[in-house]
Amino acid sequence: MYIADETIDKFIKEDVPYFDLTTTLLSIGQEEGVISFTTREDAVLCGTEEVCRIFVKLGIEPTESKPSGTWICKGETFLSAKGLAESLHTAWRLSMNIIEYSSGIATRTKKLLDAIKSVNPAVELLSTRKLFPGTKELSVKAVLAAGVMPHRLGLSETILVFKQHLNFVGGLEPFLRNYQEIKQRACDKSIIVEIDTLQDAKLLSKAGVDGIQLDKLPPEALKNIVEEIRTINPNVKIIATGGITEDNVKEYAATGVDALSTSSVYFGKPIDISVKIDKAH
Amino acid sequence: MYIADETIDKFIKEDVPYFDLTTTLLSIGQEEGVISFTTREDAVLCGTEEVCRIFVKLGIEPTESKPSGTWICKGETFLSAKGLAESLHTAWRLSMNIIEYSSGIATRTKKLLDAIKSVNPAVELLSTRKLFPGTKELSVKAVLAAGVMPHRLGLSETILVFKQHLNFVGGLEPFLRNYQEIKQRACDKSIIVEIDTLQDAKLLSKAGVDGIQLDKLPPEALKNIVEEIRTINPNVKIIATGGITEDNVKEYAATGVDALSTSSVYFGKPIDISVKIDKAH
Amino acid sequence: MYIADETIDKFIKEDVPYFDLTTTLLSIGQEEGVISFTTREDAVLCGTEEVCRIFVKLGIEPTESKPSGTWICKGETFLSAKGLAESLHTAWRLSMNIIEYSSGIATRTKKLLDAIKSVNPAVELLSTRKLFPGTKELSVKAVLAAGVMPHRLGLSETILVFKQHLNFVGGLEPFLRNYQEIKQRACDKSIIVEIDTLQDAKLLSKAGVDGIQLDKLPPEALKNIVEEIRTINPNVKIIATGGITEDNVKEYAATGVDALSTSSVYFGKPIDISVKIDKAH
Amino acid sequence: MYIADETIDKFIKEDVPYFDLTTTLLSIGQEEGVISFTTREDAVLCGTEEVCRIFVKLGIEPTESKPSGTWICKGETFLSAKGLAESLHTAWRLSMNIIEYSSGIATRTKKLLDAIKSVNPAVELLSTRKLFPGTKELSVKAVLAAGVMPHRLGLSETILVFKQHLNFVGGLEPFLRNYQEIKQRACDKSIIVEIDTLQDAKLLSKAGVDGIQLDKLPPEALKNIVEEIRTINPNVKIIATGGITEDNVKEYAATGVDALSTSSVYFGKPIDISVKIDKAH
Amino acid sequence: MYIADETIDKFIKEDVPYFDLTTTLLSIGQEEGVISFTTREDAVLCGTEEVCRIFVKLGIEPTESKPSGTWICKGETFLSAKGLAESLHTAWRLSMNIIEYSSGIATRTKKLLDAIKSVNPAVELLSTRKLFPGTKELSVKAVLAAGVMPHRLGLSETILVFKQHLNFVGGLEPFLRNYQEIKQRACDKSIIVEIDTLQDAKLLSKAGVDGIQLDKLPPEALKNIVEEIRTINPNVKIIATGGITEDNVKEYAATGVDALSTSSVYFGKPIDISVKIDKAH
Amino acid sequence: MYIADETIDKFIKEDVPYFDLTTTLLSIGQEEGVISFTTREDAVLCGTEEVCRIFVKLGIEPTESKPSGTWICKGETFLSAKGLAESLHTAWRLSMNIIEYSSGIATRTKKLLDAIKSVNPAVELLSTRKLFPGTKELSVKAVLAAGVMPHRLGLSETILVFKQHLNFVGGLEPFLRNYQEIKQRACDKSIIVEIDTLQDAKLLSKAGVDGIQLDKLPPEALKNIVEEIRTINPNVKIIATGGITEDNVKEYAATGVDALSTSSVYFGKPIDISVKIDKAH
Repeated sequence: MYIADETIDKFIKEDVPYFDLTTTLLSIGQEEGVISFTTREDAVLCGTEEVCRIFVKLGIEPTESKPSGTWICKGETFLSAKGLAESLHTAWRLSMNIIEYSSGIATRTKKLLDAIKSVNPAVELLSTRKLFPGTKELSVKAVLAAGVMPHRLGLSETILVFKQHLNFVGGLEPFLRNYQEIKQRACDKSIIVEIDTLQDAKLLSKAGVDGIQLDKLPPEALKNIVEEIRTINPNVKIIATGGITEDNVKEYAATGVDALSTSSVYFGKPIDISVKIDKAH
Repeated sequence: MYIADETIDKFIKEDVPYFDLTTTLLSIGQEEGVISFTTREDAVLCGTEEVCRIFVKLGIEPTESKPSGTWICKGETFLSAKGLAESLHTAWRLSMNIIEYSSGIATRTKKLLDAIKSVNPAVELLSTRKLFPGTKELSVKAVLAAGVMPHRLGLSETILVFKQHLNFVGGLEPFLRNYQEIKQRACDKSIIVEIDTLQDAKLLSKAGVDGIQLDKLPPEALKNIVEEIRTINPNVKIIATGGITEDNVKEYAATGVDALSTSSVYFGKPIDISVKIDKAH
Repeated sequence: MYIADETIDKFIKEDVPYFDLTTTLLSIGQEEGVISFTTREDAVLCGTEEVCRIFVKLGIEPTESKPSGTWICKGETFLSAKGLAESLHTAWRLSMNIIEYSSGIATRTKKLLDAIKSVNPAVELLSTRKLFPGTKELSVKAVLAAGVMPHRLGLSETILVFKQHLNFVGGLEPFLRNYQEIKQRACDKSIIVEIDTLQDAKLLSKAGVDGIQLDKLPPEALKNIVEEIRTINPNVKIIATGGITEDNVKEYAATGVDALSTSSVYFGKPIDISVKIDKAH
Repeated sequence: MYIADETIDKFIKEDVPYFDLTTTLLSIGQEEGVISFTTREDAVLCGTEEVCRIFVKLGIEPTESKPSGTWICKGETFLSAKGLAESLHTAWRLSMNIIEYSSGIATRTKKLLDAIKSVNPAVELLSTRKLFPGTKELSVKAVLAAGVMPHRLGLSETILVFKQHLNFVGGLEPFLRNYQEIKQRACDKSIIVEIDTLQDAKLLSKAGVDGIQLDKLPPEALKNIVEEIRTINPNVKIIATGGITEDNVKEYAATGVDALSTSSVYFGKPIDISVKIDKAH
Repeated sequence: MYIADETIDKFIKEDVPYFDLTTTLLSIGQEEGVISFTTREDAVLCGTEEVCRIFVKLGIEPTESKPSGTWICKGETFLSAKGLAESLHTAWRLSMNIIEYSSGIATRTKKLLDAIKSVNPAVELLSTRKLFPGTKELSVKAVLAAGVMPHRLGLSETILVFKQHLNFVGGLEPFLRNYQEIKQRACDKSIIVEIDTLQDAKLLSKAGVDGIQLDKLPPEALKNIVEEIRTINPNVKIIATGGITEDNVKEYAATGVDALSTSSVYFGKPIDISVKIDKAH
Repeated sequence: MYIADETIDKFIKEDVPYFDLTTTLLSIGQEEGVISFTTREDAVLCGTEEVCRIFVKLGIEPTESKPSGTWICKGETFLSAKGLAESLHTAWRLSMNIIEYSSGIATRTKKLLDAIKSVNPAVELLSTRKLFPGTKELSVKAVLAAGVMPHRLGLSETILVFKQHLNFVGGLEPFLRNYQEIKQRACDKSIIVEIDTLQDAKLLSKAGVDGIQLDKLPPEALKNIVEEIRTINPNVKIIATGGITEDNVKEYAATGVDALSTSSVYFGKPIDISVKIDKAH
């Protein structure tokens, strides 16, 4: 995945608008040094490609770099480079931040995925659009690094009918009366409708929508609705969403849905990375 | 705080590169509607000014908006607006994301601050630079909304000497030998040095640096070092950093330091906001 | 549809990097004037919202403006405004270009759509991604203004398997052997495969893919394949693409496909607009 | 000609905001592959330099690339490269679009130029400013690739007096009364005036303007006016504009004008290019 | 002249990346205040339109603002506004810098122009391209505010043949052998050639180029060459350039050239402006 | 110091939006050539790193380049490169402008610094924020190249209390009453207050602020105040500002202040550089 050059430059400029004042003050900028990144916890690594682009922009030469998606173990050094002290100090924290935050997302995603697959390999994990504004490229890259597909990346290419849409057509029934016509207009896309009751699930299954998204239902209730839907129409894809986290994901995975959609991978503690910078010998 | 217009446009374009396909497919775009944002939990609100700018760009008219920094209570509606359904659906999720993430930071910041002040009103909370790359404007705004100052915003205007710097001058002692000269060059700035041992703390206090940052020390050890420093030189400002979270912040506040610096406010669960969109009557 | 502010500014700066030298040379810049746009041919209007944003940026006050999507007839004045001569001359040609090019796309799209619907109202028109690089926002807006949906807006949210993909998995048959697993991973999306032979169409229909895209087939051959597919699996959506233009679109519409996908709307003669600028009285 | 890096990045991001979902879904991204571009029709090639920059950004290695301006013949392969399947699929369509559209402009320009030169080698072809907003860099590059000069690139560095300007000074005669003074202020520039009658042409020739642009005159009428102008003042440059296309360009070239200015090169069918992507052996 | 919105935002962000720390620290941000700008010296005012745009972005309401190009006298207040203290302090220095630097250019330009016109009203002043990179919009605006035309704004729309070009064709004589053909290709443009000897001036005059630019000649030598050129060809425009400053501009104006081209207006002391900010009553 | 890629591209596009028309017109673009930059006066060189990045973007190969900060002597060639004539002519003037303006700042800074150090090596030179809007990266780089620290880079990370702030708290005395509390909130920063009277200096010294900035005082008056402050509180840092130039800097250096802050380095004559471009042999 290609992250735009202006994003990379923004990462640099956010943290170092001009130069590292401390390095300049100590007159150490022209010394040759080495930098190395070591993880303090097991993680799915992410962001090293972007950090290497930053290194190259700053005249730093990467000497070792493991790709995004690599599983790294506590104590493992996954990225090293050499260059001038002023460049290493410019790159240090922003590189660390990129890797810590994106590897955090990748690792949480992988853990959720593994939990789901341990219960039922046929259930998919999907990530939502509820990510920190301004981080879409890096957040999406992190989810992919963990082997998971984003559910929707934006509003313009997929169809997900919410109650907030239905309010303008008078509710679910008027929508379903026009469903065939709507489907024809969007014949190359899946039409998914989000609801939260058994009654609506039955209506949608009978109408033959491509998918039903069930929001914020407890696993037990969800399981019952899934069984009803399967009986009415086995072709309808079923996605559960709302409140799915590490704590309850296995219960949700056991409900028989096709996929679990969650935002919980996008936030949480960054991976703890230690960075050493030393004078070169 | 002014967030750049290109940041605001990026927020829109990340989520809605072109249009809301679902709204278009349902042919409801030209209907008049109303949108309202209600919090599902107590929070320090943040981001409404940016959301209102998005509204105005999309032709939506805000009818009520509480400012960033307002304490909002569970069930409180803090933002309402009216406009065309296509505009409301374009604005919906990205507005929610902006408010949920930035209010999450503001709320965690306020909770930490209150915890600290309940122990010792003379201790300050400072936020670090370890924030999600790409979110600096919004993250800094959120911290300010909670009444807290960022510690350092970048590398170019403040001085913080890390071990990674000292490695290039041969350690702390050579640095201290030149300290007066260094201080003179930076006479308009504070010089703070990060260390993690009592021995180094003593050396720095004697040398009269402006501040000492103590990294990853347990509260008990920290307290002892603080007492030593105060004895040697009461003018030295002392900042604790590393691993300070909601769980241990009160213990740290009781150590006698001047300030606690933490990244933990920047990540964690977004505030849970519900958004209603209805047809206007 | 919201076009980013930097796109609007780019439109201005491309044509007028600094000022209209001719206006300055003639010392007429501070005169009050009026501008009006009149079409020299029937058209689906597009781009007036963007032109009005340009007007406002330049201090020009729109006095009349018909919205994108309006059918305008030869001789009809659809946009008027007043302002200083220097602003009117700055806005003139770039406004004309925006409207002429985007209305050209909208009008060609509408004509194709009408031709199709006159043959078979159940056939949809879809626009491809083959548009002039740098014009995506305006081109997509123009297609929407004519009431047509873009087929795919980019590579990241829809699935279209080309021969160029299949070459990496060993062709169509290995792909179909894994189809169920692939479909499960993308359970929230439609999977469409582009092929160009009857044999492949049969294989895909039996496998139950969501859609088949048939590339560059003559209408007669296409019709036969469509009938075969319908017999095997009536749920498969069928899209024809490749070489569909105003000249042959009716023949394609009569083949029984669900949709016709074409790039021909994106290029061709701009609509001919005349612009008058006069001194205000 | 240097096209800005942000334009190149925009080309990528317009088509591939994040990644090729199809490639990811098929798990073929890490396969090594080769890509080659072959023309299906004779053309003046344009855009390969920009495509190679895109290749390099994506880690694709160009193995053969003919420069912009090359005449390529039907069936000729002019660009090849190798790289990972995920990169090749990211680059494919956007590269094709860049080359197809810009080579379309270059080829139409060259055909017009050749037609003109076959009639009268002393007549020049000039391209106007009426190009698709957002495409200026690529459109200008394409015109240059065909060996033709743009007439005016923008409003700020050349002088072209339109009726829309003259309306503010009271018409042509007041303008001519001040002509010497105006010319003095712009002594380093050519002053060209657009008119459409013999009477105005006579007035301008007598006044000694640098150039006269004659708008939308039929070739026969144009020829008469040209002869009149030449008799009155042989130093005045004469440019014909308005409605000049492939169909009538030879008649216009025979009128004795110095140059023909046309927008018709900027729009029309893109060149038809085929792109093969295969697994590397 | 329209300065792009991203330039305006860059002006803000360069000086105030996030907020005014001092205002926040003093907890005065929400106080209502007034700001006023007064000149400490006579000047041609420039930049108030851009400052007012900044004010509006920051929620400040302009109450008085004189337009760019106004002659302001020592002690005159030309810009006032009211708003919150945090906004006023954000806007203060960057507004002052915009006005001081651009008014400095405008004032130097006006002084040079007046000096020239006092000697010979038929001589024009032209500004060169040698301006501070990054300031082109503001610098050009300032020159225009003083009533002067920029000579060339860039390389792409005007023709100026330097020795550095002639070196590739073998010098001036080979160039002149092809002059008619070159002129024909650029029939809508002036061709100007820069030289610095009488001999070259004679060759160029005989060849009938549109203009001759004479570089770094002392006024006396220049005057002789001008007379020679006028004798040979009175239609050739003559521009002097190189080393023309406030000190010698009158001597150059007396040489009989058509125009003087200088960079000296672009640099020098900014106008001294005082800014008052007070609490509103 | 890393200057953002979009700044570098802006430098190119400001001067050469598309191509060098003169080079194209003369058909010399594909000739191989060499370029070399020689100084016509002694200077502190700045900007060669940025020029080399421009060269590389344009396909020009640098063959010799001295780093920013080098002292170059009249007649010294400090930068050479080779490439196609069209690239060399594209790069020529903008490279020259970058080097001339930034070396001008670096050289003025170095001269002021040397003058100060010749009087009193313990006095520092600081550069202000009063620089030409749009040039911050290049201007700051130039100051650093001369070995000088910027005083404040922006408003968000340093504290400088002006009268304009004090007006909102009721003047200096109310501010001082809350000083300890304010200092505690900003315990990691220096607090500096700008004043211009002995009385205020005494109040501030007694209160123990970190620094006092004295604005626009004549050297003699300044010296007296400095002595008073030193007597009251030897720890207070004293900065003089306002009207310090090459002419009076030594007198100011002799007053006993800790630092002199001046804007005068930012404006003035660019260094005079000659650029040769020749055909390669």
